[in-house]
Amino acid sequence: MASDIRDSYQELTKVFKQYSTLGSISSVLQWDMQVNMPPKGAEKRANELALVSGLAHERLTSKRVGELIETCKSANGALGEAERANVREISRDYDRATKVPQELVEALSRQRSLTHDVWGRAREKADFGMFAPELEKLVELTKQLAEAYGHDGTPYNALIDEYEAGATVASLTKMFDEMKVVTVPLAEKVINSKVKAKFAFEKNRFTAEKQKAFGETLIEKIGFDKQGGRLDTSIHPFCSGGLGDVRLTTRYNEHAPQQAIFGIIHEMGHGLYEQGVAKETYGTPLSEALSYGIHESQSRMWENYIGRSLEFWKCFYPQLTSVFGNELAGMSVEDWVLAVNHVERSLVRVEADELTYDLHIILRFEIERDLFAGVISVSDLPKVWNQKIEAYLGITPPNDGKEGVLQDVHWSGGSFGYFPSYSVGNIAAGQLWKKMHADMPTMSAKIEKGEFADILAWLREHVHRHGRRYSRDDLMKMATGKPLGTQDYLSYLEEKFSSLYQL
Amino acid sequence: MASDIRDSYQELTKVFKQYSTLGSISSVLQWDMQVNMPPKGAEKRANELALVSGLAHERLTSKRVGELIETCKSANGALGEAERANVREISRDYDRATKVPQELVEALSRQRSLTHDVWGRAREKADFGMFAPELEKLVELTKQLAEAYGHDGTPYNALIDEYEAGATVASLTKMFDEMKVVTVPLAEKVINSKVKAKFAFEKNRFTAEKQKAFGETLIEKIGFDKQGGRLDTSIHPFCSGGLGDVRLTTRYNEHAPQQAIFGIIHEMGHGLYEQGVAKETYGTPLSEALSYGIHESQSRMWENYIGRSLEFWKCFYPQLTSVFGNELAGMSVEDWVLAVNHVERSLVRVEADELTYDLHIILRFEIERDLFAGVISVSDLPKVWNQKIEAYLGITPPNDGKEGVLQDVHWSGGSFGYFPSYSVGNIAAGQLWKKMHADMPTMSAKIEKGEFADILAWLREHVHRHGRRYSRDDLMKMATGKPLGTQDYLSYLEEKFSSLYQL
Repeated sequence: MASDIRDSYQELTKVFKQYSTLGSISSVLQWDMQVNMPPKGAEKRANELALVSGLAHERLTSKRVGELIETCKSANGALGEAERANVREISRDYDRATKVPQELVEALSRQRSLTHDVWGRAREKADFGMFAPELEKLVELTKQLAEAYGHDGTPYNALIDEYEAGATVASLTKMFDEMKVVTVPLAEKVINSKVKAKFAFEKNRFTAEKQKAFGETLIEKIGFDKQGGRLDTSIHPFCSGGLGDVRLTTRYNEHAPQQAIFGIIHEMGHGLYEQGVAKETYGTPLSEALSYGIHESQSRMWENYIGRSLEFWKCFYPQLTSVFGNELAGMSVEDWVLAVNHVERSLVRVEADELTYDLHIILRFEIERDLFAGVISVSDLPKVWNQKIEAYLGITPPNDGKEGVLQDVHWSGGSFGYFPSYSVGNIAAGQLWKKMHADMPTMSAKIEKGEFADILAWLREHVHRHGRRYSRDDLMKMATGKPLGTQDYLSYLEEKFSSLYQL
Repeated sequence: MASDIRDSYQELTKVFKQYSTLGSISSVLQWDMQVNMPPKGAEKRANELALVSGLAHERLTSKRVGELIETCKSANGALGEAERANVREISRDYDRATKVPQELVEALSRQRSLTHDVWGRAREKADFGMFAPELEKLVELTKQLAEAYGHDGTPYNALIDEYEAGATVASLTKMFDEMKVVTVPLAEKVINSKVKAKFAFEKNRFTAEKQKAFGETLIEKIGFDKQGGRLDTSIHPFCSGGLGDVRLTTRYNEHAPQQAIFGIIHEMGHGLYEQGVAKETYGTPLSEALSYGIHESQSRMWENYIGRSLEFWKCFYPQLTSVFGNELAGMSVEDWVLAVNHVERSLVRVEADELTYDLHIILRFEIERDLFAGVISVSDLPKVWNQKIEAYLGITPPNDGKEGVLQDVHWSGGSFGYFPSYSVGNIAAGQLWKKMHADMPTMSAKIEKGEFADILAWLREHVHRHGRRYSRDDLMKMATGKPLGTQDYLSYLEEKFSSLYQL
């Protein structure tokens, strides 16, 4: 009997590895589409991606996989703890993939394309009315999707679960409410502070070549393995690939070098997570990132906690000025750090600073939550959007387009429930950061000396190597002694910005 | 009944398109492997490629495909001529894929890896003895492969057929014998001519950036569609991809700019073929290149016939010297053309000039032919190699390594029967070239003015758009009025080199 279970487990992981390999093929095709593909290649690439995604779905949802999962679950005792975790996570993926009727999958896919298509044009024209009818249909279909997944009376929970297993409307509302009461007044104080960044980067030209050369040096010194990864250019920055071949991309603004520098550090944070998963279980959930939120905790940790610190720039500013001597003339390291921590009332999420970023997320979460609870409808979105951004950031968009309710791609693609992960990442990073400090009292000194090996080792030990083995709260408890909460993150924000802005 | 056939035909082409899409996915993965992949990505990429190739094989060889082919063939009358050609070619691919027993496929794959692996080391050490035992096993398995494909008593015919459908040992021996009697003495005369190229490129540095910039301009002016293709750098130059996304690669030697320039024009010739296939049948044999030889006829046409002509450089030499003014100081356009048509007794095929290139091919063909006929054995190869290269080129390799019998990768990978295609390409190009001249008496003037649209249109009309619709001889008859023969090619060589070298 035990050997039957072992055979079933082997077969199950073998099929899952094929499914995973199809995913990694898809990832290469998508990377290439963003980085290299000539315009006329679009149709062929769409066919390639559709075929791979169909084959992957077939592999994961076959009757045989269902049987193997049942066999493995029926005699869990014959498997070790790690293997049981693998079966649990494969079963989770199988369930989500098989619960949705094929007609709904197809209807959603069609409606996502249509909505995405009209979104591009509506955003350009700042015309929400153009977008609303397609978005309404997409929200309806997404409600059906939530029903298909199943939930406890709150359909939005089923959507959040896709990106952040275990998170709920209730837990997120509680965390975000705790954050608002701290962040809104703190941002107000910082914006009104007499301390101001002195430098306007726009005056000088920071060539893309020099920015790239600096970025390449930076990630190598921090510990990104170039033998198993690379850095390229794309319109929308991202990190893709996996162990052995992790691809980072960025874009260069020659009058705002901080965008690419922190963009690169951010994507590198994602990349270090991917480079840190367990090799021996590669291709199974045990070597997959735990959630979007935990992934984001890694990118934010490196970008904001480490990358925007004075210690970090005490180490790297001399190298930055050796590349951009003239362009940064007259700017001290303290000026630079203040400049890259400039806080402002901004309308656009992707350009928001560390402190106000969560406010952009919270308003989106509240809108999605209320939309799927039937409290508001699609036609209310522009009004509610503007009310919330005024309430949280004290600013009103000039229109519904690129600076307003139409700015993000997420809703047009049906990715409802995705936004909260960004703030979950910030919160998790804050909690991990505090524990890292406690475990390594000399961490600041290490950063100042450009020694990142111990920090990376800590993250590998406590986060990266576990993959999807533990739930998010179990991982946080093991790493920090407590489940995810906002306290450490909010203390960090208060300390950092009070000190920088002499509040 | 007719509608049954139509349904079967639709289903058959649908499955074939999936097979073809898997091929194009594999091509992106391989391009990326050569151009971008970091070293540690090799294992994952190997898994991805193996999975895609397995899925493609499954698609093509399913029982259902066999049934559909039978149905379509049984009532050919219900299909149009183009559709019947598609069925014929799909059936050819199906037969070749299904005739080989799975154990032989696996044994060959294993033995190819082993032989390739030892080849790299043996070549480095110039030690044929190291290579021979593995090569012997590979030849044995390849003989079994030829038996599986079936043949008329000459196993090598079954191997040639993979690359050049319809070519036979008899037809190639006849053509190559005709060529030897012309090319060997002609090369001798050219080498002994008092006319010598005056310039040694090695003295100056032609930066890779400038070479690339010039190459990009060149292919764009000639008519390569950059909206549906691109040019990159790789260690081994190649062309891959297809309609909408054709990828060319080259490598840059900063002391020999002619290598990349003609390398780029060569790969562009392949690329123009791929960009010229019929869009409406894309993904079926009707939009696939006819054979390796016809593919090579296109690359050689652009590289040698057009690219190495005085007319071409009358147009482009001013642009070349505007990029490399200092590096080419004192060199006239006539000097340049003579330099890039320098003929010599060379040991290495990939560096051989236009005139002696075929001699390198002919000796390899004769060796393969005699090896598979049992006339010589693997252990005879170094001796036979050296005898033949001495006889045809008047030169003897210093050893069996990079300049001798171990120089090419082909045998180590089991690609027996591939070499003849290179010379078939030269011959076909000569015949097409002559007919193009007859159809367009002002062709030389057009080239001198940098007008390539009519030339490209002629090639599209007579070659590219037909894909695999006609046999090679039928295509040549339609395009030139006669089946493939050496006469036009040999006349071209005699005229060109007699004129250049004042014989």
